[in-house]
Order: sequence, then structure tokens, then C-alpha cells
Amino acid sequence: MTTAPVRQGFLMPIGGAENKVRDRTVLRRFVELCGGDAANILIVPTASRRAETGPQYEDVFRDLGAKEARSLPIETRADCRIREHVDSIGVATGVFLTGGNQLRLSTTLGGTPFAEALIEGNREGVHVGGTSAGAAILSDHMIAFGDEGSTPSGHMVTLAPGLGLTHRYIIDQHFRQRDRLGRLVAALSYNPANVGIGLDEDTAAIIDPRGRIEVSGSGGLTVVDPREVEFSSMDSSEPSRPVCVTGVRLHILIHGGTFDIETRRAEPRQLTEKET
Amino acid sequence: MTTAPVRQGFLMPIGGAENKVRDRTVLRRFVELCGGDAANILIVPTASRRAETGPQYEDVFRDLGAKEARSLPIETRADCRIREHVDSIGVATGVFLTGGNQLRLSTTLGGTPFAEALIEGNREGVHVGGTSAGAAILSDHMIAFGDEGSTPSGHMVTLAPGLGLTHRYIIDQHFRQRDRLGRLVAALSYNPANVGIGLDEDTAAIIDPRGRIEVSGSGGLTVVDPREVEFSSMDSSEPSRPVCVTGVRLHILIHGGTFDIETRRAEPRQLTEKET
Repeated sequence: MTTAPVRQGFLMPIGGAENKVRDRTVLRRFVELCGGDAANILIVPTASRRAETGPQYEDVFRDLGAKEARSLPIETRADCRIREHVDSIGVATGVFLTGGNQLRLSTTLGGTPFAEALIEGNREGVHVGGTSAGAAILSDHMIAFGDEGSTPSGHMVTLAPGLGLTHRYIIDQHFRQRDRLGRLVAALSYNPANVGIGLDEDTAAIIDPRGRIEVSGSGGLTVVDPREVEFSSMDSSEPSRPVCVTGVRLHILIHGGTFDIETRRAEPRQLTEKET
Repeated sequence: MTTAPVRQGFLMPIGGAENKVRDRTVLRRFVELCGGDAANILIVPTASRRAETGPQYEDVFRDLGAKEARSLPIETRADCRIREHVDSIGVATGVFLTGGNQLRLSTTLGGTPFAEALIEGNREGVHVGGTSAGAAILSDHMIAFGDEGSTPSGHMVTLAPGLGLTHRYIIDQHFRQRDRLGRLVAALSYNPANVGIGLDEDTAAIIDPRGRIEVSGSGGLTVVDPREVEFSSMDSSEPSRPVCVTGVRLHILIHGGTFDIETRRAEPRQLTEKET
């Protein structure tokens, strides 16, 4: 509907458990996105309770060639009002949100000057990546938690407001590993206005400012497109009882595949001239 | 943050059970907002299962002086793709969503050409009112259902995507009558980025394009402002166990009172010169 200005930053949600020691395809791609040897990456480890999470990403990003990678000590809402932290977004080329608990992220960051600066920064060109919990919170409608299983059912999924960096995709993660198709379809069945993306572990969606996705990594990305849904019984659903939904379109993409939210077209990786 | 263009339409959520036979303060105000004797109002009765709901509002709006008031027969997602219904928004000055079940509204309208035209219409100047379920769905983060009580608790409230006509307010209704402070605070505790408004019955919030609210009607409007929240335990909440939230600001406004989302200031009704 609206065309985003080109200066807007990319989003790069990752399905969790991305490779950090050998090929590191996904994290390497994030460093490249943020400018390679000019990359200045801020790490937000708030979702995690492990003290080593931030320093670990500092090491990986530097090792992959980033000019700077720095973890911010943000643990409380008061930390999100510290001028120095808020201002640091203004000089970053990328911000990376670690895994952990997405509700810890939303309860700590939500509505604070730091969150507002992050949203504004992305609008002005800062790329924002996140893994697991850090991927979920990029959505406007964030999956907070839910049950496993491939059939959607009533009360199966709990949504909460996320950072709202995308108003078009609902992002789920650890997708194949934790059998989450049901909860993603359930989330979309409440209101088929968004498109769902389910990210397997070690797999990323690189989302450009126009909402076009490219897949990177070793797993699959499941696109759940409800635009042509003809019926959803979610308005009369009961706890743990299956929900009826008709007309859902599904695409499973792998490394190099793309999805365009304007045309709703999914394409496998296009072979280069050399490969054909 | 962003300043809306002045041509954008107003929103007018109503807390349900508005007076329809005697003073009709709230519905009269909606007709005035939509142009009085030039008002062309479309009624969307989809949330309701009662056949008389649409015709009843047609009668009331005409009786209050609207030039035209017409109920659209929208019951299914296929109905939301009928060109005639979609185009009718282009000539309306106001759209009114009746009460019923807000999930029936979101599952039926969500993501369809009719919903897209309504969102675009409001951006271009069409005023959108709604009562009860029709009020809840105006929010981006819609309260789908929840438990009664004034203390927030884990899993107490279920959010679903609404129409997203406001990205700044979460709207609850039948507020005092059904004891809903707890569920509204719970909704905000997931992510304190929005402001909550709890509407008593026969009470409306008139929201201008800049997010400034004026109250109309016989009940109260409770503003729940979480901007200064210092802590929320929602990330570690358990079902039915109380949630800890500190620093919530509360305002209870009555007819003529105002709230400004930019300054976060609530004011009682200003007396006119005549009254002082």
C-alpha cells in the first residue's frame, strides 16, 4: 500500500541456534548487511539471562570483520532511559537482539526512549537483526508463547505487542524444531491481515524496506499467506479445540529463495549464469 | 512522533449500550462529526448476529438528522470482496461498526479489500465509530477476550490484531460495568508502548488525527498511561497469578474531559465564559 522510503534499514530475523563457529553463513550475512569492515554493531542482550551472551556476539561479529561490535548493558527499564545508550543507536549501522525471552524484551524495552530510538533508527537506515526471541519481537503482533503441534487450536497462541518494525509479517522461530505451524496459523486466523513467516534454526529472512524477503541459512522458511482465506472459525473457538481455516497458502523456501509481499509471489533461488 | 495529516478522519469508540431512544448524546455526536444533515453513514453490522441491528442504527442515525444511513449486508469474507461494498466507503462520510463479537469482525474483515478500503478511507477523511466490539477492533492490538477483575494476572487477556486505525491506544469497553481494569493493565504490561482507554457504557472517546481525546457521554473514560512504568513481571507471569507492575498513571475523565497523547496531559472539561 505505502511505499517505504529507500533509506529505511533492513530487518533480519533468525530462527535461533545460528551457527557461530564454522561457516557462520547467517551471522556473516548480517555483518555484510551492516557494512562489512565499516559495520558498527550494537548488541542488545536483554532477552538473555546469561552474562556471556553479549560478549560472545561481540567476538563473533568482530571475528567476521565488523569494525565495531559492542554489547549494551540493558537489564531494566531505567537502563532504557540512559542517554548514552539511547544516543548510541545514532552512530550504529546495525542493532542485534539476542535470544532469550521475548516478553523480557517487550516488558523492558517497550515504550522507552531506547525502543523509540531503535524504531526511529531503523526508519532512518539502521539494520536490525535478531535471533529467536530477538526475531519474534521485530513484529508488531509478537508471538509471546504458545503450544506445539501442526493443527491450530483455540487459545493455542498468545500475542503481545512487539517493537512493530514490521506491520506486515508475524515472525515465528525454532519453527520445524519445535513444531510451530499450528500456532502460527492460529495467530493468523484471528485476523488474516498479516503474513506469517516461520524460521527454522540457523535460517534468516532478510527483509528489505519494501517487504521483500530473501532466505539465508541451512534450514527452511515457511511462508503462511492468509490473504485468500475464505473462512476462519477463530471467533467461536474453544480452548484446545481445533480451529477451521480454509484457503491458506503455504510456501517452503530455502537458501536463496524469495517472497514478495506486494505480489505474494514466492520464487526458488534463481541460478546465476555460471550455474545454468 | 509523526504528525498525521489534517485530512485524516476521527475515530469514535463507544463503550457499548449507548442511549438510543432519549438524549442520545453519543450517537448524536457521531452524526454531527460525520457532517450532520450532510452525513452519509455506512453501518457494518458484522459483529452482531441479530438481523435487526443494522436497521436499528439506520433508523437512529436518520432520526438524528443524517442525510443517509445504510447498513451493509456483510456476513462472510466473500462479502468483503464485493466491489459495490468496497466502493461504498469512497462516498461515505462515516462508517459505524456495531457491537457483537470483535473476533467475528476480525476473522471476517481482516486482510480483505473491504478492510483495506476502510483503513485507507479513514486516512483520507472518513470518520470511523464503533460500539463495544466495534470499538475494540479500532485498535492495532485488540483485546479479543479476557477475565474480569481489577488486578492484572497472567494469561488474563488475549490480544489479537485489530483494524489498526490507531497504533497508540488499546481500547476496552463495558469498562466499569464488567470490571475490566485488570485486563487492560495486563494488556499494557506485555509491552508498555501503548496507552489504554477503558470506556464505560454510553460513553465515547472522540479521537482526533493527532491522537487527542475528548470524552462524550454519561459514564467515565479511564486512561491507563504506562509510559513511566518502572517494572513489569509479565515476562515471568503464570496463569491466574497476579502480575507486578509499578509506575502506571491513571486518569478518570468524564464528559468534556480531554487527554493529549503527545503531552500525556489529562484535563477536566474547561468551562466556557458563560459558565464561569
